[in-house]
Parts: sequence; structure tokens; C-alpha cells
Amino acid sequence: MKSKTAMVIFQPSGRRGSVPTGISLVEASRHLGVDIEAPCGEKQVCGKCKIRIEQGAFQKLGIESKYNHAGPWQPGEEKYISLEEKEKGYRMGCVDNVEEDLLICVPRAARDGKQVVRKAARPLDITLNPAVKQYDVELVPPSLEDPTGDLERICNVMEKQYGLKSLGIDFSVLRDLHKRLKAGEWKATVTVWMDREIINVRPGHKAGSFGLAIDIGTTTVAAYLCDLKSGQVLDTLSMMNPQVKYGEDVVSRISFHMDNDDGLERMSNDLVEGLNGLIDQALSREYEFSRPDNSDGDGAKCLFRIERDDILDISIAGNTAMHHILLRLDPEPLGVIPFTPAAHHSLDIKARDLGIGINPAAHVFMLPNEAGFVGGDNVGVILAEAPHRQEQMHLILDIGTNGELVLGNRDRLICSSCATGPALEGAQIKFGMRAAPGAIERVKIDPESHEVDYKVIGRDSWRSYSKPAEMKTKGICGSGILDAVSQLFLAGIVVKSGAFSKNNRHSKQFRKHPETGIKEFVLAWANETSIGKDIVITQKDIRQIQLAKASIYTGCKLMMRKMNIDTIERIKIAGAFGAHIDCAQALVIGMLPDCAIDSIVSVGNAAGDGCRVALLNRDKRLEADWISRNVEYMELTLEDDFQWQLMEATQFPHMNDTFSHLKGVVPDHILNQK
Amino acid sequence: MKSKTAMVIFQPSGRRGSVPTGISLVEASRHLGVDIEAPCGEKQVCGKCKIRIEQGAFQKLGIESKYNHAGPWQPGEEKYISLEEKEKGYRMGCVDNVEEDLLICVPRAARDGKQVVRKAARPLDITLNPAVKQYDVELVPPSLEDPTGDLERICNVMEKQYGLKSLGIDFSVLRDLHKRLKAGEWKATVTVWMDREIINVRPGHKAGSFGLAIDIGTTTVAAYLCDLKSGQVLDTLSMMNPQVKYGEDVVSRISFHMDNDDGLERMSNDLVEGLNGLIDQALSREYEFSRPDNSDGDGAKCLFRIERDDILDISIAGNTAMHHILLRLDPEPLGVIPFTPAAHHSLDIKARDLGIGINPAAHVFMLPNEAGFVGGDNVGVILAEAPHRQEQMHLILDIGTNGELVLGNRDRLICSSCATGPALEGAQIKFGMRAAPGAIERVKIDPESHEVDYKVIGRDSWRSYSKPAEMKTKGICGSGILDAVSQLFLAGIVVKSGAFSKNNRHSKQFRKHPETGIKEFVLAWANETSIGKDIVITQKDIRQIQLAKASIYTGCKLMMRKMNIDTIERIKIAGAFGAHIDCAQALVIGMLPDCAIDSIVSVGNAAGDGCRVALLNRDKRLEADWISRNVEYMELTLEDDFQWQLMEATQFPHMNDTFSHLKGVVPDHILNQK
Repeated sequence: MKSKTAMVIFQPSGRRGSVPTGISLVEASRHLGVDIEAPCGEKQVCGKCKIRIEQGAFQKLGIESKYNHAGPWQPGEEKYISLEEKEKGYRMGCVDNVEEDLLICVPRAARDGKQVVRKAARPLDITLNPAVKQYDVELVPPSLEDPTGDLERICNVMEKQYGLKSLGIDFSVLRDLHKRLKAGEWKATVTVWMDREIINVRPGHKAGSFGLAIDIGTTTVAAYLCDLKSGQVLDTLSMMNPQVKYGEDVVSRISFHMDNDDGLERMSNDLVEGLNGLIDQALSREYEFSRPDNSDGDGAKCLFRIERDDILDISIAGNTAMHHILLRLDPEPLGVIPFTPAAHHSLDIKARDLGIGINPAAHVFMLPNEAGFVGGDNVGVILAEAPHRQEQMHLILDIGTNGELVLGNRDRLICSSCATGPALEGAQIKFGMRAAPGAIERVKIDPESHEVDYKVIGRDSWRSYSKPAEMKTKGICGSGILDAVSQLFLAGIVVKSGAFSKNNRHSKQFRKHPETGIKEFVLAWANETSIGKDIVITQKDIRQIQLAKASIYTGCKLMMRKMNIDTIERIKIAGAFGAHIDCAQALVIGMLPDCAIDSIVSVGNAAGDGCRVALLNRDKRLEADWISRNVEYMELTLEDDFQWQLMEATQFPHMNDTFSHLKGVVPDHILNQK
Repeated sequence: MKSKTAMVIFQPSGRRGSVPTGISLVEASRHLGVDIEAPCGEKQVCGKCKIRIEQGAFQKLGIESKYNHAGPWQPGEEKYISLEEKEKGYRMGCVDNVEEDLLICVPRAARDGKQVVRKAARPLDITLNPAVKQYDVELVPPSLEDPTGDLERICNVMEKQYGLKSLGIDFSVLRDLHKRLKAGEWKATVTVWMDREIINVRPGHKAGSFGLAIDIGTTTVAAYLCDLKSGQVLDTLSMMNPQVKYGEDVVSRISFHMDNDDGLERMSNDLVEGLNGLIDQALSREYEFSRPDNSDGDGAKCLFRIERDDILDISIAGNTAMHHILLRLDPEPLGVIPFTPAAHHSLDIKARDLGIGINPAAHVFMLPNEAGFVGGDNVGVILAEAPHRQEQMHLILDIGTNGELVLGNRDRLICSSCATGPALEGAQIKFGMRAAPGAIERVKIDPESHEVDYKVIGRDSWRSYSKPAEMKTKGICGSGILDAVSQLFLAGIVVKSGAFSKNNRHSKQFRKHPETGIKEFVLAWANETSIGKDIVITQKDIRQIQLAKASIYTGCKLMMRKMNIDTIERIKIAGAFGAHIDCAQALVIGMLPDCAIDSIVSVGNAAGDGCRVALLNRDKRLEADWISRNVEYMELTLEDDFQWQLMEATQFPHMNDTFSHLKGVVPDHILNQK
């Protein structure tokens, strides 16, 4: 019994690892540095360590492991867990023990540190032309001489005053139209969608229309609350994608649908519930608002809350799987050759049809899909970065749980999708974790002494300026792993093939695992971690990064060949990962094709930006459909030499080959090494 | 206790009357000739007399009487009534007694006779051009070389083969689109709405599209199930409007909404539930079908059932109150000066938004409203009878619970609404009832002997050819009352003012009520009725008919004045009432303006016909909107002399004035009386 271990994954941090069976879930969380709140010290008296045990499956040594193995209900659990919670899988972390593989979701209330979703909105230059616009109307009250109906009374004014002809109306707006018109003494604010449908009528002249641009990633969801009148971003709301519990990547979500009759419904419901939670958050907050039409001219700001009915538009960008699952479109074809989506074209869907709690007459605009693996999020990236409007040849990489690549300019656009795997997000790495407090995000290794310096998220001082006990390091996130591998290579600890050098035997940090014999390099010693053991990079971790970077590099190279070009003028890296990696390190390990460092820029959450563009400018919705039809999808695996190119690209590059502009960034003796 | 009585109304027959309190509900039904099934003879052992006690209010002597007075739950009732039924108000008719005013709904199972809803579809010459059309497509299966999405694959073929460009799709159709296409081996039947939205995709080439034209009357609902491919009416389904329990006319329904927070929701839900019941009926039946494209050419007929998903269109015509209540639009403004509807324009609403159980992507087309009191049912009448396309001046009367009048031709159309009251439908008449078995529908009175002959619904032989005991007369329906009043007038029993003549004292049939002193004329003696008492026409009954006919006549006259005409070339009487009255009798009592008898025709359920026209020809939907905008609504009560005209018209006319063409129909001595 003592030697038995089980695999435990904690969400939303993504921290995972083997722990001995028989220990409590709280204890397991300590092993993996997750820190579930347990202020009573596991005395089963505070009820704070309430967690949820999820049902699903994950890949373990290439084999699917079902993880619905919650132990039997224990006496004492009912004290803190309601019947309803019990049905949802809630348990007490201090009462239940690890018996078999588990996926545990730690609710916000029980979380010690906070997940960092790094998807802030950046300033964009958007021509304001929203799909949803508001108009003031002043009506002649009905009389026995002119008892025209309320709708026609409004439409007559809309045509005369604003030139809007043949307006339709969502029938739900008719429900209390008369009352509203009377309440406003026959003055009203009329909201029109796409110049063709009345979706709201408010009493009196009181403008206020808000929209949400929502980027639904496989792992995280970011929503930008925008004022449709000013284009201003009022708030950025984010959450983990609640579907994470059904599987970490799109493939496992599709499998969950195929294995469970109600799988699609559950995943869709959870996402909609999550989105409604974000909306509720927005409704509960107060925003500062200075009306541009403030007649006092003193620019006085006032605080206000948004009403549900005044959220009148939503645009959504996601990859094809997120798109399909949200709409409950069968996602199976996305995972089966020839990987066709149900539809490419953008869709306008009534919010009420999706159960999304905004104005029920409002629409949700779903950005179009490019191909089976390249969805509306990539259309968003193109919309935001607009390579199709520029002469300069662009390479745009959006690296999340999946990698999407775009190459081109105004003459031609190619896109492709590459299976980066989750390694660059910290998953499937021994001590990998998502970007959360305690994660190593920067690494420097001294080429001589092999001494490691690093920085963790949530702490400004690097290790070299801290006492070991202050670090409380938990694991490594994507940018940290990339740094580490690059630094290992530059320090000569890892050679071109990715293997540990034979000259490491005298390095203090390098060792073979006493039990497994696997070679590993220690980044952080046990005394500087919060998990009580050394945090290492293993040979296998390096291989994962090699595969990921090779996959990206090969994609870029094959697309460049198709485009018949040798060099790239501009590289843009989108996604949270792109925002935090050190581009020089990415060049060092050969993840990117050769390009002047100054020409590589991170563009943040470009998918979300594009989504915002579509929210605020209806013409861009047409452009989005144009993009989805005109970008050429390239299926990389169909290229004859794909496998060979991929193998070739797993190596680290010669520093003196094409990376001449790394001079000054990379030490000379490395640049000139054979 | 013994002298106490309570008012009891039985639905759906509409039979009403005072009964002594303390008697059982079954006994009360016998008093009023309703005949609840009670095969066990009230021994409380068969459970057949299950009825439902409704909650609501009715007008009693001008005062609103609440009728939610079910007595306390009795032992033994739980044997036949489930908890769910109990909540809905079900009780045992033999166990419960009448204590106070009651409205009792007799479910179909407990009904002895069957309600006759006389709304059969008549043959119409309709150019077939439905809003919903089906197309066969044959697709190239997707491949890695051409992994285009399913929707675009279909749209490409639809454009190339059928010239249908820029088709949208209801997102729900995308849900299992891929599976359906695969199941049909990439052959499919695509259903398109209005040339713009794909609303269904079926595997293989298997046409089948059906629609419902639904006429929602205040009292009855008729649905015509049509094959959208052939235009053929497969079935006519009908029911009582389930809202009858909330009030018999539109005014009391609007009051029910104003008095109850959930009133609108309940009335709407009940109607939708009722409509879904009709749909379920249609789905459960087998229809005979000979395919026009039967390649065998033998015209062989086959039986088939319709699938829910193949009901792909619905058109609905109703008066404005029915329109508003179905859609849950606040009906209050319809009942308050200046009586404005929420909208005139027709509406296309997704069936799913109304909870109507057909293909969820299908639309419901709501015919437009003309004015606050003149709804889509009247547009349907005009659409079916098309006065606006003819030179001949038409007068069209649609007499149901409300009366709607249309006058005009291709040059001009006027409509108005008149408050006929429910008398012409048999309500508020002492022995009035709806057109159901046992109702007197025809009356002849011998001018000399005052002997009465009559015919009841459900029995072919007139009274004069039957034994008294065979008649089982229950009451009088609308056409019977009209006949009776006209015959009383022609026989001189009632004079021009409507009062009983002073010369009646020797008539066997005429008497003063022994208790109340009210004058009455006996139509049927107790021994020929199933209710054990004489069925009479009272002075008050005659007054009700006078008011109703005056209201119609005044409407016609004021409209003719507005139109500046003296004579009418053609009168069409729509509605079930119109189908069964004797037009000569209607002329005799002065309900209609002077017109040659041959030029008066009954056009049956023209509202339903027009609804069917709109279902089968989409161009007619545009025409419907044209009609609703171009017919001039005339508010009769705004005319200065309205009251005076109405008073004038309550009298019965001089037979020698304008009714010269009644020669031969009406006895000479009557025609020439002063």
C-alpha cells in the first residue's frame, strides 16, 4: 500500500503529479504546491477546504485514465456539504483521501493564491460603427382619431427622422412596449440591430448600450465589457473555461462528447453558466463614466451600474471546438478526417437561444471559422492585426493550447494549425503549471557555474535577491520552461540534440534521479519551494519543449515554402504565452524562423482584440467572413516531407547559421560554437 | 337553504343556468341538459364523471362573479383523482355539490355528446407558393483536399443548382448536420424558409413538408393541416379555446390579465398547450397520401404519419386580443381608449420562442392586425374573399363572439368592429348554448296556431316528425334564436318594437313566468327536453337579439354612409354563425341592410381560409400587410349619431319598406302590415 501512487491534477492551476495513495486531498495539494485553504489544520471543523471531484479522463502514459474515483462518502462531510453540492461532486479536502487517479477542482473560495489570467485589453484604433445603435424618438400619443399601433408609431418616426425603413422588431420587445412608451411620456430610446431589427425600447431619452467581446479559449475565457457608444473598454472579466474539468485540450473534450450521451450538453451548459457568471459580475460592479455629451462641460464623472437589458450585443471568438461545443453543434467531425466544421460562416444567434442572460432580444455574433482546426479566434487575430491590409509579409503565431499560424500580406494569406501540445502552457511537464503565483516565469543559468537564478510570478525580487524561504516556488509555467531550456542549451548543459551533455557530471544542479535514473537539472532546491521537494527539468521535459517548438518551426517553414519566401519581415506572437516569453530565447531554441529581434512583437490577446473589433464595427463582421473565405488553409501533415522536417526541427539550431542578429544577446562563445 | 340557487356554467357547451345549491354537479348538469357521463348512476364507483372546476369570473346581472368556489375535498375523490389532477382543479361530479357559482369544464372523456366545431375547410383556389420549400441536393463528400464545412458545402450547391444566394441557417440545424449528411450518403433534402434561411436538412431525398393554418377564435380554435407540397388539406383539427375558462369574451380575458399578475402567462400557456395538443393529435393520426411524383403512375395511395420535424410552417390568424395573449403582449391597451394594438405588422416568430412543438427552426407567421379591435382574423377574411381585387361592392360580416365588418371594393376598403355581444352564439340567452347536439338550430312558428316546429343539432327529423321523447332538446344555439325571433315577429307574436304583442293571451305557448312575471314563449315543452323543463324565449332574450342585430345593422349603415352608397351588391357572411343562419330571417329582423337574397352568401370560416392562403402562398403575406395598412378603420362610436342610429335599429323593420325582394319568402300579410 505504501508504495502505491496516484495521479492527481488540481484545477484551475493545472498543477499535477503523483502522490502516495492514502493521504488526504489537502495533503496531496501540499505535495503539489496547490495550497487549498485549510485554516483549521485538517481538524474537520472549518469547512473551508471544500473541493469538487470531477468526472472525466486524462492521458497518463499515453493511456486514457478515467478519474471518477472519489472514495466513499465519509461521516462528517454532510456537516459542510449540502445535498445539492454532494450531487455536484463536492467533498471535504481534509476528510477524503487519495485512492486512485483524481482531477480536483479547487473553487475560488478554497483557493490560497489567485489564478492570473493575463488577458488585459490593449488600446486599439477602432472606427466606431457598432451593430447596435440607439435613437431618440418623440412620438405623438395615440388618440381615437389616430389609434395607430405602437410599433408603427415608432417606425414612422424612425423612417422620417433617421431614414431607417422597413424596421422589424423582436416580438419580445412588443410585450410591454405600450407601458414603456407611456412611462416615458411618448419619448423613447430605440435600440436597433444592424439597421433592421428593433431589439429594445426604453422609456425617455436615456442612452446606454453595452456589449461584450468574449474570447473563449480552451483554458481561459476573457470578456471585454465595452460601451457601444464610446467604444471604451469598461472592464475585463476572466475565468477558467469551466470545461477544463472535462479534459484539458480540445481532443479530450471531443472525446468526452463521444463517450457521454449528455457530454455535449454538460460542456455547453457549464460554459454558458460560466459566461452568465461573468455577466453577473459585470452587473454587480460600479463603473466610472463621463458622458461625452455632458452639457456641464466639467467632465464630471459618475458611478453607475449596468442593467441586464442594456447589454445589447455580444461577439464571440473561439477555436472551432469551443465554437461547436458552445452552440451544441456535434464536434465529432472536428476530430475525424477530414476535419470539417459544421459551418465556416459567422452566425447571428439570439442570446436567449443560447441561454445567455443579457437582453433577450439581443444577438450573439459568432466569428466565422477558417477550417476544422482554425476557428474564429484566428479570424479575430487577423482582424486585429490586419496582415491582409498590409504590404509587409507577416507571420502571426497564436500559441495557446493549440498553435495557429498565419503567414501573408495583402496579396495572399495562408493559415495552418500545429499541434504544439500543452507543454508550452506548463502541462505535461513534471513540475509544470499554469501562470499562477509561485510559478517560475524567468530563468537565467550561468554558463560557468551552472548556478540558476529565477523569478516567480507574484514576487518581484529574483531568487538571487531573496532568501530561499521567501521564494515559495511551486512549479514552472510556460515562459519559465522556454527560458530554462534555452538557458540550458546556451550554458552547454544540453547539446544540439536536446540531450544532456556528457560534461555535466560535475555540475551541482545536474543529477540522475536516484530511483528512475532519469537525468534531471535542478532549478529550485526543496528549501525554496512550497512543495518540499526540488523542482527539476527532466530530459523528458526538454523533449516536450523540443516537440512543441519543432512543431511551430516546421509549420512556419512549410508555410514560407508554400509562399515561396525565405525571410520574414515581421513576426507577431499572440496569446498570453506570446506576451510573456523572451523572444530571444525562442530564437535560441529555434522555435521561430530567423528574424530581426526588433521585428518580433508580442500582440497580446489578439483574438480577443479582433473580437472587440467585430463588436464595435459591424463592417468588420463582413470583413471577418471575407477573411474566413479567403485565407488558405494548409494542412501541414499533408506535405510529403512533414515528418522529416519535424524531426529535423527538434534539434537546437547552430548559433552561427542564421542567427547572426543574436549577437549581443547570446554570448559570443556560444554563437561561434560548432 | 332550499330556496338558494347558484349560477353554473358548463364548458365547452356554454350551457348555463341557476340550479338549487346542495345538488351534485352531475345532477346540476342534468338540470342544464349537459349530460356528464355517469354510467354508475352516481354510486361513486366508476370515476367517469371527472370534471374540472375553473377559477375566474363571469358577469352576473352586470356584476362580476368570481367562481372559484369549489367545495372542500371529499373522501373518496382521491380514488379517481391523482394529485396532479387535484392541483389542476379536477373533482368528482357525483361527489361534489354545488355550493356557490361555478364554472365547470367537462373534459372530452366525461362528455356525453360531442361539441360540434363547424369550421371545415372549403376548397380554395390558391396559387401554391409556400414560404417553406424543399430542395434535393447531392454533395461531394469532404476530403482532406476539400475540407469545406457542411453548411458551405450545401450553400454552394444551392446557389449553383437553384440560384439561392447568401442563404443563412438556423443554428439549431447545424447541430447534427454532419451526421445527417453522412446518413444520407451526402444526398439531402434541404428546407428553406423565404429563400433565405435553411430550417431543416434531412438525410437522403425524402420530401415532406407540412404546415398548419390556425384560426384562433375567442371560443373555438381550428387548425388546418396542409401538405405544403400539394396545398392539400390533410386534416382539420379543432378545440375549444382553453382560455374560455378565464372569461367568455375578449374583455373578460383582458380583465383576467389585469386582475392577475400571472394571468397573461396562464392564458398564453394554456393556449400553447392546447395548440400542442392539436399538433400531437395530427402526429398520432395516419393520413392517406398519393404522391404526385409517383413514378409507378398507378396513383397508389399509402398511409403515413407525419413527423414533428416535418411540420415546418404555421400561420396564425386571430383577433387582436388572441394575438396579444398568445404572444404575451400586454393586452391592456386593447381595452382602453384609444384601443391601440402593440403592432399592426405581421410577425415571423420562431416556433421555439412560443413553445410550439413543431420543427424548432420553423417560424410562426402571425397575420397582421388592422386596428385595436380588428385583427388578423379579419385580414384573413379579406385575403380569402379579396374584395380589394373586385369591382363589385362587398359587405363582409364576420360574426363570432365579436363582429367585424368590411365594406368596399378595389377602390376603397373600410372595416369596423361592432359589439354584437355573445347572444348570437347562444350565450346570455336563458336557454342559450353553443352549437352542440341537442341545440335548437331551426325554428318555424305557424302564424295562425302559434304551433312551434324545430330541429335540433344531431337529429335529422324535425319535431313534427318525431315523438316528443325522441327530441332530447337541451337549449337553443345562435341560429335557432335568430330563427325564433324572426318567426315570432312574422307570426305577430312580437311587434315592431320587440315587445310581445298584446294579442298573445290566447296562445298556448305564450305565458308570464309564474314567479318572476316575465313574459316568455315556449319553444319546447318539458317532455321533449332532456332537462325536464320548458325551453322558452323570454322578453330579455329578444332584447339581447335586438341589441346584437342593431349593432350589426348600424355598423353596416354607418359604413355605407361613409362610403357614400345606398345599396349593397354582395353580402358575405363569414364565421360558423354565418354558415348556419337563414339569411331570409336575418333580413326579416333587420340585421342586414337590404340586399337581394341570392346575393347573400355564407363563406364559412373565411378567417381560417385566409390563414390557409397565407400559409400556402408567401406573396399573400405581403398582401396581408398591404391590407392591414390600407383598410380604413372606422370607429363607429365616434360618429355623432351612433347612439341614435343604434336605438333606431333595435326595432324590427317595416316589411314593405326596403325588403321588397322578400316577397315569396315572407307571407304577404306580413309584408304589407303597417
